[in-house]
Amino acid sequence: MNLPEKIHRFIHSQQPKTIELLQRLVQEESTRENESSAQAIVIEKCRELKLDLDIWEIERIKLQSHPFFRCDRNEFEGNPNVVATLKGNGGGRSIILNGHIDVVPEGDPKDWRDDPFSGRVSEGKLYGRGSTDMKGGNVALLLAIEAIISTGIKLKGDVIFQSVIEEESGGTGTLAALLRGYKADAAIIPEPTNMKLFPKQQGSMWFRIKVKGKSAHGGTRYEGVNAIEKAMKVISSLRELEIKRNEEINDPLYQSIPIPVPINIGRIECGKWPSSVPDLAIIEGRVGVAPHETLEEVENDVENWLRELKEQDEWFKEFPVELEWFGGRWQPGNLDHNHELMNTIKSAYREILNSEPIVEASPWGTDGGILSKGANIPVVVFGPGTTEVAHDSNEYIELEKVFQSAEIIAVTLLSWCGVDL
Amino acid sequence: MNLPEKIHRFIHSQQPKTIELLQRLVQEESTRENESSAQAIVIEKCRELKLDLDIWEIERIKLQSHPFFRCDRNEFEGNPNVVATLKGNGGGRSIILNGHIDVVPEGDPKDWRDDPFSGRVSEGKLYGRGSTDMKGGNVALLLAIEAIISTGIKLKGDVIFQSVIEEESGGTGTLAALLRGYKADAAIIPEPTNMKLFPKQQGSMWFRIKVKGKSAHGGTRYEGVNAIEKAMKVISSLRELEIKRNEEINDPLYQSIPIPVPINIGRIECGKWPSSVPDLAIIEGRVGVAPHETLEEVENDVENWLRELKEQDEWFKEFPVELEWFGGRWQPGNLDHNHELMNTIKSAYREILNSEPIVEASPWGTDGGILSKGANIPVVVFGPGTTEVAHDSNEYIELEKVFQSAEIIAVTLLSWCGVDL
Repeated sequence: MNLPEKIHRFIHSQQPKTIELLQRLVQEESTRENESSAQAIVIEKCRELKLDLDIWEIERIKLQSHPFFRCDRNEFEGNPNVVATLKGNGGGRSIILNGHIDVVPEGDPKDWRDDPFSGRVSEGKLYGRGSTDMKGGNVALLLAIEAIISTGIKLKGDVIFQSVIEEESGGTGTLAALLRGYKADAAIIPEPTNMKLFPKQQGSMWFRIKVKGKSAHGGTRYEGVNAIEKAMKVISSLRELEIKRNEEINDPLYQSIPIPVPINIGRIECGKWPSSVPDLAIIEGRVGVAPHETLEEVENDVENWLRELKEQDEWFKEFPVELEWFGGRWQPGNLDHNHELMNTIKSAYREILNSEPIVEASPWGTDGGILSKGANIPVVVFGPGTTEVAHDSNEYIELEKVFQSAEIIAVTLLSWCGVDL
Repeated sequence: MNLPEKIHRFIHSQQPKTIELLQRLVQEESTRENESSAQAIVIEKCRELKLDLDIWEIERIKLQSHPFFRCDRNEFEGNPNVVATLKGNGGGRSIILNGHIDVVPEGDPKDWRDDPFSGRVSEGKLYGRGSTDMKGGNVALLLAIEAIISTGIKLKGDVIFQSVIEEESGGTGTLAALLRGYKADAAIIPEPTNMKLFPKQQGSMWFRIKVKGKSAHGGTRYEGVNAIEKAMKVISSLRELEIKRNEEINDPLYQSIPIPVPINIGRIECGKWPSSVPDLAIIEGRVGVAPHETLEEVENDVENWLRELKEQDEWFKEFPVELEWFGGRWQPGNLDHNHELMNTIKSAYREILNSEPIVEASPWGTDGGILSKGANIPVVVFGPGTTEVAHDSNEYIELEKVFQSAEIIAVTLLSWCGVDL
């Protein structure tokens, strides 16, 4: 029996145990600042697999001077980052398998058919917040490692499994692991891609724009300048910038995507009183960053564009809008889709699923941007969940895809890290 | 010495005392629910003038079935309405002199050069919240009545002085006085018209419009429908309705007014998260009501207009906007500018100021709408303050105009009510 066949049988035999592990993980409500109990389950599993464990609490002071650091959390005590290494025998290529343990809040429980953290299994799906994003992916990673161990062989290169916190809030967990010294020749992140391969990922940044008006009584509104109407001009102008920015993208991976790097207007707030002309509008949004761009380039792009508003409307000459970059920033990912890591995963995919994998660019950033832009690590995002249900009520994952992705990743590890015969 | 001459001399002699009275009134912070101490000063003055006093606390239950009642205040205890009557000898026309004692909040004290309730006098101006809107006008009314009394003559018709609460919040004070039985052959309200005569006043109503969208992740915004962009369509459509409504107004009084009945967008609120497509926008605003219109007509006008949104955008077919009429409602005023009350005030004005009064339509509603639409009382709004400084920081009133308006009103009383020789 060859190695892939052994791996296949092992994974098949582990289905009940794997479902139970995922169920336990989903049942721990590992929202921000509550990651400890889910991490404890991960640690327990890594101990069982006899991996080299590194468990530490993030110290803000060690990260805060890094240009990628964006974090409004001060307290990490009791909620550790976890890295567990399957040491290779040497002479092979190493790989990071990175997944985040934090989940976004469950939202309104009334929108859920079950308890949001039920972990209920029904018709091949496991339900609950975090099932797709991304505890299902994490469990696939652990199962892949366990499958390798089960074969009795030794890999040449190291497999560095990372269960990080803070991905949903800007990536401080992965940044902390990187700055602690964890680098590798490649990385796979099983975010919910629905089994597609994403060598490129859209990055993003949040912006806030303040638009001035001039207050007046609503009965003589013509004596004022309505900040809402000026804000509408700003929004229309951002739409034009979005068109311009997307016209410049000719990467074939984006061929089927209507807007590769959207500018989203997420929030507007203006005015306090129905019968007053409001004098300040605040717009908040997210600008997508193309794989080939740096965040700084996009900052300049938007800044320069908004400076031109004055050519359309004299008002902005006297009262230019104020632009602020705040909160979330996600680095884009930009791996050549012919990179050897891609070829390795693709051939594992073909071997196991007997079909050609779909290769796309993701519409969202992942912690992969921190690894690739921060340490030149080739990253592919590939995982069993689906974007559509992530962050939504009644989130679920198809269990079959957890097993398939575990198998593909295990076979990838064989080729990438090399087997010490 | 004829009566007008006596009145002129009396008012001149009372300047220091009048300024002191206005100062004391401004120094009482008679914002909503805090009207009692300012009313106490009014009552003291009315007692001094030996007027027939009627002081009562409003009872919500007695008003709430009236179609003009719009009030979110439940507690009136300790903050009375005040009506003080100078009884005529009979056989003449009666008149209501109506002023409100409530003032709007002072806003940010940092925007004021002095204490917002200083009552400071400098270079002929008295400063403080409520000086212009409308304690200066109220003091002019009291001074006019005192001047009549000082001449020793008796009027034929009653002079019904009203110091009401709640004008700034929808007119419950004046409505309460009306329903208590106070009616008359005419009314003057000395709101800040800067000595212009306003036989017509713009009414207004507040509206709230809910606009639906469809949420999505900002990175794939094209999968959602942004409620902000749909709200922009609604706002643009309301601009068109404003143009249409104002084209229909051909009253010569509005000739010099850019937009006789504006639709003001006062507030918008939409979205919570920069990288989500928001699915609900709330727009609040104020629609102006022309003197010849009823509030119900305008409600229908706006409702029908918004129903047509679906012709412009299929989205509104499936998700029509929700329109709600909430909060403030001010009845318009619509006196023929050749009405005898107008002629009486005009000739008093000419006599005292030796010039032709300016006649206009006001851009805001007053409690006058309640008197005219509610009981067919002819109302003219005429007062010493200026709209520009009302509700603003560093509000002030020119004292000379307080004395001039008092004199004009006193002479008007002589003609309107008739002198019992």
